[in-house]
Amino acid sequence: MKIQLAIDRVTITRAKEIIEEAYPFIDIIEIGTSLIKEYGISSIKEIKDLFPKKTILADLKTMDGGEYEFKMAYSSGADIATVMGAASIDTIKVCYSVAESFRRLMMIDLLEVKYEEIYKFSEFKNAIFCIHAPHDKENNNISKLLNNFKDKIHNNVTVAVAGGIDFDDIPELKKFNIDIVIIGSAITGSGKIAENASKFKEML
Amino acid sequence: MKIQLAIDRVTITRAKEIIEEAYPFIDIIEIGTSLIKEYGISSIKEIKDLFPKKTILADLKTMDGGEYEFKMAYSSGADIATVMGAASIDTIKVCYSVAESFRRLMMIDLLEVKYEEIYKFSEFKNAIFCIHAPHDKENNNISKLLNNFKDKIHNNVTVAVAGGIDFDDIPELKKFNIDIVIIGSAITGSGKIAENASKFKEML
Repeated sequence: MKIQLAIDRVTITRAKEIIEEAYPFIDIIEIGTSLIKEYGISSIKEIKDLFPKKTILADLKTMDGGEYEFKMAYSSGADIATVMGAASIDTIKVCYSVAESFRRLMMIDLLEVKYEEIYKFSEFKNAIFCIHAPHDKENNNISKLLNNFKDKIHNNVTVAVAGGIDFDDIPELKKFNIDIVIIGSAITGSGKIAENASKFKEML
Repeated sequence: MKIQLAIDRVTITRAKEIIEEAYPFIDIIEIGTSLIKEYGISSIKEIKDLFPKKTILADLKTMDGGEYEFKMAYSSGADIATVMGAASIDTIKVCYSVAESFRRLMMIDLLEVKYEEIYKFSEFKNAIFCIHAPHDKENNNISKLLNNFKDKIHNNVTVAVAGGIDFDDIPELKKFNIDIVIIGSAITGSGKIAENASKFKEML
């Protein structure tokens, strides 16, 4: 399993410090939605320039205007950009087409998508599917979400999981066929960034 | 009906020019999602500082992390901020609570919300409900959307409508009890900004 480090609710300076500390233990750097909305798309370019060898994900959470947003993200150095599964299928199609033309990747964020609706996305063969428990909901249950989704997603697709993941969740996550584990505050808010990132890497 | 001018896919400099030209004919300035994602939250402050007497809407399209995003928008001078109706109900509750504490407004963007689900939002008494046809979908039919929603929304709520609205749509829109008409490229992309904004104002 790869580790995607989600950077949110910090300054760009602090983001860079966090990435430097966690660098050896992570695979993907996520420029969080809050960072993009606070500092704009230049946050992606700045971080890509500093860490050109890491995969950069722009958590755009696109709901509409997919072509403009996805072109902007890829042109700024993002390797992966996110669209909401809750967006219209036309929006997701537009994003996918931009992703394919840039030879980059699209992640579909399944936040608030009902598992019965997953079949709609089967045409997006190269998409990454992100099973996502919302930050704003208390008592999230990631493994329940995973159980709901596992039969709906074709075995060959790439699956990511996100939503308040901490050390306790890892044994349960390892029972599923997950490619990317997205970790945020359990690393970034810990005060022991390198130590915790290293511990996650070891566990995974 | 009020006119909300949606500014998207332009530079901040161009945004300011557009607002200056349209200024006498519009009621609400919308800092579009693309502007926020491209230039960051400072785009809101910059425009509020220049046009302090107009109502400013930050089209955050929040899907998660509601508290941080809404506080950021209101602190930067936004009078209204948007959350997606497709977000989790917990996210919308958090946004509403921030809006109430700032004594500002929350708009719920009903993009891709099924009209059967509208009842979920009845607790948000002071929210503005935005009936929204996606930019990425061809052959949008605003009046069909409005017909679907009109019985579901309590008469006392404030209703906005968005999605590729042009002059042709106005006679139809006037049949509904709409408070805010959101207009974007029919004004901003026209090359005749003042003229078209004035024409919309007259028609409404």
